[in-house]
Amino acid sequence: MPSVTSREWRLKSRPVGEPTHQNFEMATVEAPEPGEGQIQVQNLWMTVDPYMRGRMNDVRSYSPPFELGEVMGGGAVGKVLASRDPAYKVGDLVSSFAGWREAFTAEPKAAGVSKLPNLPLPPEAFLGVAGMPGLTAYAGLLKLGEPKPGETVFVSGAAGAVGSLVVQIAKIKGCYVVGSAGGKEKCDFVKSLGADAVVDYKAAGPGAGLSAALRAAAPKGVDVYFDNVGGDHLTAAIDCANINARMPICGMISIYNATKPPPGPHNMAMIIGKRLKIWGFLVSDHYDMQPAFVKDMSEWMAAGKIRYEETVMNGIEKAPDAFLALFSGGNTGKMLVKLA
Amino acid sequence: MPSVTSREWRLKSRPVGEPTHQNFEMATVEAPEPGEGQIQVQNLWMTVDPYMRGRMNDVRSYSPPFELGEVMGGGAVGKVLASRDPAYKVGDLVSSFAGWREAFTAEPKAAGVSKLPNLPLPPEAFLGVAGMPGLTAYAGLLKLGEPKPGETVFVSGAAGAVGSLVVQIAKIKGCYVVGSAGGKEKCDFVKSLGADAVVDYKAAGPGAGLSAALRAAAPKGVDVYFDNVGGDHLTAAIDCANINARMPICGMISIYNATKPPPGPHNMAMIIGKRLKIWGFLVSDHYDMQPAFVKDMSEWMAAGKIRYEETVMNGIEKAPDAFLALFSGGNTGKMLVKLA
Repeated sequence: MPSVTSREWRLKSRPVGEPTHQNFEMATVEAPEPGEGQIQVQNLWMTVDPYMRGRMNDVRSYSPPFELGEVMGGGAVGKVLASRDPAYKVGDLVSSFAGWREAFTAEPKAAGVSKLPNLPLPPEAFLGVAGMPGLTAYAGLLKLGEPKPGETVFVSGAAGAVGSLVVQIAKIKGCYVVGSAGGKEKCDFVKSLGADAVVDYKAAGPGAGLSAALRAAAPKGVDVYFDNVGGDHLTAAIDCANINARMPICGMISIYNATKPPPGPHNMAMIIGKRLKIWGFLVSDHYDMQPAFVKDMSEWMAAGKIRYEETVMNGIEKAPDAFLALFSGGNTGKMLVKLA
Repeated sequence: MPSVTSREWRLKSRPVGEPTHQNFEMATVEAPEPGEGQIQVQNLWMTVDPYMRGRMNDVRSYSPPFELGEVMGGGAVGKVLASRDPAYKVGDLVSSFAGWREAFTAEPKAAGVSKLPNLPLPPEAFLGVAGMPGLTAYAGLLKLGEPKPGETVFVSGAAGAVGSLVVQIAKIKGCYVVGSAGGKEKCDFVKSLGADAVVDYKAAGPGAGLSAALRAAAPKGVDVYFDNVGGDHLTAAIDCANINARMPICGMISIYNATKPPPGPHNMAMIIGKRLKIWGFLVSDHYDMQPAFVKDMSEWMAAGKIRYEETVMNGIEKAPDAFLALFSGGNTGKMLVKLA
């Protein structure tokens, strides 16, 4: 297989506040014929995820910042076009972390390549329900949240890739589940996933409005709060928390674009009397749960207990649109870009 | 033994913001001759503690609010003057939770009475180093903080009853210890307890000043933050926290008197990337550690490894002064009121 043309998105400038199209630039490169130990991959799907916003800043964080002029990092699934690594053959479906690009040539390890598991799922599912967002929901809820049957689980961003799975896993575990989302359409989707109650945060309004809406939706209080949003959502969860509530903090999408970080919850003192455990986590610390996740998720999906939704944009030229839409609630379920 | 006269402090009005003398009124009552199953106790020492501020509000919290017109609750140690309970004899030294009073007559259980352990300590030590504040420091640091040798432990309110013990227990456990306190005199005291570095929060100034001072004092970052203060101290601890840091939240004295709760830390998003565990606790959940606490503390004190300081006011008429001084940094070590 000769070289193939690949369009890729690079970080042109670092955003201040909300990212814009000006922060990205497209380049066209060649993914060359593979050298010894390399493979050449055609990406079929790529993912955009909220955590990428943090990597656009020039701040040392848990993952290194994207470099100016370099390709945006991130996950993709694709198929092997050519291989000079005996572990991969032409046609293999693989996931990778080689970023926002149509094709690449690399040593598999350097590009975070691994073969897709042999499960009856389409390849893009491994960027969502059966991939990083799925494990995030599974590990964060079960390991950090420790929900018990009959307890109330509240999850924000409940129509999103992670949140929609938290809703369903919590229902499987016998919990009373409250999800929050913005607008009637998304709230209906969350209900359709099995949530017992839904909070429309746009209708509830900020601050005390959200706390009141959550209190009404969770009459027995909140035992587990799975945070994808931060800000007023976290404040409301603390307000409504029961004693010994656990709060796995997965994301705070409401504040990622703030030029000046907003103040934290005014009700922090409740942490003491309620003995709250507020616990940040990254999925990368919980890969030990991957086998249990794959086993459980496969069984649940086979039994029809897990639904997943995707919001798909077509063509790599749409990748910035897809990414930017994450911050305006433009996705229901997993946001994906279909490349081929 | 006939009835004895007892002066007692009652809650006259609920404070708005900082409590004042106007919130308290003294009454003189008789502690009568004990009836069947009762004992009559002369208190020798009483304690004032920051948590009492919360109970002055008319808000359901982890402990019920004090009632208007009723005696202020709280711990004391005293001796039995008369007994019609065979488990107690005249002269026994007892601790109780019967509140801010010179004497009382009650059934032991109703007044939270128990005999002082047989340890070579003066009775007032059971209101501090060997009592509730001691167990608070021990359980919060060891069970929730899980400090490992060589790790950095930061404790705020390090000159206080709980903080001064956290400093010393953390040193015993082989940690690098940073304590914060207000003013040179208290900082010198914290140093004298063995702290490796001290932050004078009054000199550092609020906000970024405190974070910078902590960063300088804890060059390897913070692995455990034992919070007695909240507010800017918690923000600074989050700023300087290492990955997987644990933060037992014991108290937030900086905000107890706020009429409008101040905003929480602006750097809450760091909780995720740093995988911080912010965990509120009450000593009452950790009485299972009491035997280990008594054993360890006795050994450490016998070996000269634990120093404790007391700030003593004389006479029950001083009890409000002693309590109010807690909020202006008027105590080094345990604040006590000597009654007899």
